[in-house]
Amino acid sequence: MQGKILRFEGGAAIVSAASIVGKYEYEGPLGDCFDLHDLTEKFGMKTWEKAESEMQRLAFNTALAKASASERRVGALFAGDLLNQCVGSSYGLLDFDVPYFGLYGACSTAIEGLTLAAATVSAGFFDTAGVVTSSHYCSAERQYRTPLEYGSQRSPTAQWTVTGSGAFLVRREGKARIVEALPGIVVEKGINDASNMGAAMAPAAADTLLRYFRHGSHTPEEFDLIVTGDLGWEGGDILCDLLHAEGLDIASRYNDCGMMIYDRERQDMHAGGSGCGCSAVVLASHLLPRIERGELRNILILGTGAMMSPSSIQQGEAIPAVAHLVRLCHEKYAKGE
Amino acid sequence: MQGKILRFEGGAAIVSAASIVGKYEYEGPLGDCFDLHDLTEKFGMKTWEKAESEMQRLAFNTALAKASASERRVGALFAGDLLNQCVGSSYGLLDFDVPYFGLYGACSTAIEGLTLAAATVSAGFFDTAGVVTSSHYCSAERQYRTPLEYGSQRSPTAQWTVTGSGAFLVRREGKARIVEALPGIVVEKGINDASNMGAAMAPAAADTLLRYFRHGSHTPEEFDLIVTGDLGWEGGDILCDLLHAEGLDIASRYNDCGMMIYDRERQDMHAGGSGCGCSAVVLASHLLPRIERGELRNILILGTGAMMSPSSIQQGEAIPAVAHLVRLCHEKYAKGE
Repeated sequence: MQGKILRFEGGAAIVSAASIVGKYEYEGPLGDCFDLHDLTEKFGMKTWEKAESEMQRLAFNTALAKASASERRVGALFAGDLLNQCVGSSYGLLDFDVPYFGLYGACSTAIEGLTLAAATVSAGFFDTAGVVTSSHYCSAERQYRTPLEYGSQRSPTAQWTVTGSGAFLVRREGKARIVEALPGIVVEKGINDASNMGAAMAPAAADTLLRYFRHGSHTPEEFDLIVTGDLGWEGGDILCDLLHAEGLDIASRYNDCGMMIYDRERQDMHAGGSGCGCSAVVLASHLLPRIERGELRNILILGTGAMMSPSSIQQGEAIPAVAHLVRLCHEKYAKGE
Repeated sequence: MQGKILRFEGGAAIVSAASIVGKYEYEGPLGDCFDLHDLTEKFGMKTWEKAESEMQRLAFNTALAKASASERRVGALFAGDLLNQCVGSSYGLLDFDVPYFGLYGACSTAIEGLTLAAATVSAGFFDTAGVVTSSHYCSAERQYRTPLEYGSQRSPTAQWTVTGSGAFLVRREGKARIVEALPGIVVEKGINDASNMGAAMAPAAADTLLRYFRHGSHTPEEFDLIVTGDLGWEGGDILCDLLHAEGLDIASRYNDCGMMIYDRERQDMHAGGSGCGCSAVVLASHLLPRIERGELRNILILGTGAMMSPSSIQQGEAIPAVAHLVRLCHEKYAKGE
């Protein structure tokens, strides 16, 4: 197999997490789980881009506060977002006197960051590492598609960029252990419809899951949940079909952060949520507390990212995608390994 | 001190490197050192963006060939560029079946990548890790400033984006050892002139060097060279002045990749070179061979990145910057540590 499953022998765990969201995420099924929200989605700022940065600042601050930790204990930040040149992160985390590794993995960035945080903490480079990602519907729309004022029609296969930022602190010991990771390989299967990211990303998620199950020692049945972030309803169906054709059935334990964050009937979000903030806030607010309480003992979470740009789409290129996998366990379950 | 000096006890070394450049880099003082060049700067492609991706593909392929290595031995790629959503890397490295970590550190990306490659290889996660970065004058101009056809006047303090891509392979053992790294902290000192990146980035380089010398066990005199990439002539002067004011004199052993790549008198490149490709190709083609031959025994290289976007500049924001430091030694010198 190309690509090795990384095991964090030195120990890695998410010890604190925070989630900041906008109006539609707060009004969705997980609304009560988020730490902070702002119905105006401006977070006191004058531009959408600054609002996105402010969400990152609030998210990291909240994660620090929940762990009663000072920023001085954090050896490195792994951060990224969808904005050109990742300015959501570089401006949002400027207040903090913490070494900064900028990442770009599109919607896979939270899981990419958790992988690198787990690797560097487990190897003893840092006592604590932070991971922060964000996306904002309004800054993303005008950058990737059209300004909101244009009032353009959305395709039914289009996903809705989540307004949200999630932050995580990773240390060697904690209830929610990061046991394994399998970094994604960039794949491109000819999809060039930027309004159907789910279809572009599903093959990347299938590639990573097939590599994990074929070459690791696990079967889907061992997992309470296999969750992607974010294929949405469109891409989630395609993923299950692709895996089924390869003889792997995950449908009964599968979910997607982009499906979980909005109510398909009540909210008109088309194919579901997406964006660097989506998997981050769903993990921080909903999945992680369930792992900590022992309701979820053993899960796989895959961050899926579509790695195109508006220019590459205008130039007629197909959409490359990547899916990074992390296995999270309750500490009691991890010890039995 | 905030930010710890990372030491790669398990071993880390650059075992192979490659450099691909355009016309002006080939015509510059280091012209003969580069592996490949194309005077049309198109590399057989129809768009500047695809040309940039093609440089990355060529660079990584050449680095593999020089090490007689198959891509199957490479456990991970750490890659990035300046294009929106880092499409230079995601499209350029699509041919390779290698796990992919996307980075965004502006012009600091090559050194950010070497830091993460050294950390993960030294800790035993990968046998070999690859680092690839690129920039292209023509794709950068139309994205950050104006299309070339506009023929806009350049400010004397403006830097010239290098057309080039550098690739590195990192393993535990080799002649050019990566001994230490000090990740950068994002700083912003009020500079908001996007035509004077050197001034915006110099304080970040000063911050990292001051942390390194104040809290490590070394003095500038121990180093054959302290090199930044890329402050240019403008930023390089400011850095030496800032450090001098703090009682640290590096001027006699200081140089900058953006100054080294062009001839200030013969070529009209204003304040010198910049871009993700600049420090990568100067390190790959010129500095690394000198380390391998023992001409340079012990050097510090700092990747300096300006972390703004055209939008953040239009919105009147100042320019945040980051500087990642790596210490490279000839293996004989590293063993005495």
